[in-house]
Amino acid sequence: MIRSTLALAAALALTTLAAGAADAQTQKEVNKKVVVEFYEKALNQKDFEAASKYLGSRYTQHNPNAADGPEGLKAFLGFLKEKFPASHSEIKRVLADGDYVILHVHAVREPGTRGSAIVDVFKLENGKIVEHWDVVQPIPEKAANANGMF
Amino acid sequence: MIRSTLALAAALALTTLAAGAADAQTQKEVNKKVVVEFYEKALNQKDFEAASKYLGSRYTQHNPNAADGPEGLKAFLGFLKEKFPASHSEIKRVLADGDYVILHVHAVREPGTRGSAIVDVFKLENGKIVEHWDVVQPIPEKAANANGMF
Repeated sequence: MIRSTLALAAALALTTLAAGAADAQTQKEVNKKVVVEFYEKALNQKDFEAASKYLGSRYTQHNPNAADGPEGLKAFLGFLKEKFPASHSEIKRVLADGDYVILHVHAVREPGTRGSAIVDVFKLENGKIVEHWDVVQPIPEKAANANGMF
Repeated sequence: MIRSTLALAAALALTTLAAGAADAQTQKEVNKKVVVEFYEKALNQKDFEAASKYLGSRYTQHNPNAADGPEGLKAFLGFLKEKFPASHSEIKRVLADGDYVILHVHAVREPGTRGSAIVDVFKLENGKIVEHWDVVQPIPEKAANANGMF
């Protein structure tokens, strides 16, 4: 009886641990899905209304060329739609840690050009995007190695 | 007896699950520590001998300005030592997912200048660094928001 009770207590404790780890894993996968869907709606479809549904109560912007908040995103997507309607962003890699999702992206503003390598970092709260950082580098014509930027 | 055996079996199964999750978590923390130490030895101390101990059997380079392999890193650190001996890289954020470690970095080549925002992505195998990607963007003088690039 004592052994049975101990085993049950251990099972319960471990269930809690395993469930916690599983929850974190699930949230990470949910966050990745949210960011990938948001990116497609925003950067490729250039649809602010659809993209804005993925934003939380704030959208803190660290890209130095974009104004803060959802209005900054709206203006940026308007700019893309008008100046680079055929621009396309291809996600090469999706990584996540805690509340952060990281995208490694090949962005081409005009088809046939080399485009840029970008890393975007998004912070999420309760499955919604609340903050964004990025680093953008034009892909050079020549490289010192044959591995490509991705 | 049956209940006790079932509880023990459940406890064992959950122990395996929890241990797996804990192992992944531990490996992630080890990987972060390896990359942060490597970065300090390489970029700040510019000590190729010390930094190269963190490399695995290959070092596949995707930075278009650096040659492939450990020799490319050696040449780059030699260049930094000679041209920008006071250059300093401050790690702002360390993230990890599976075999990948991501650093968000403020790199200043000459003290007093604005420097660049960088995201480095490292891939590890058995706790050793085997591949590197990065994206580098000079920090502009003016920004459309007041949040900074980090």
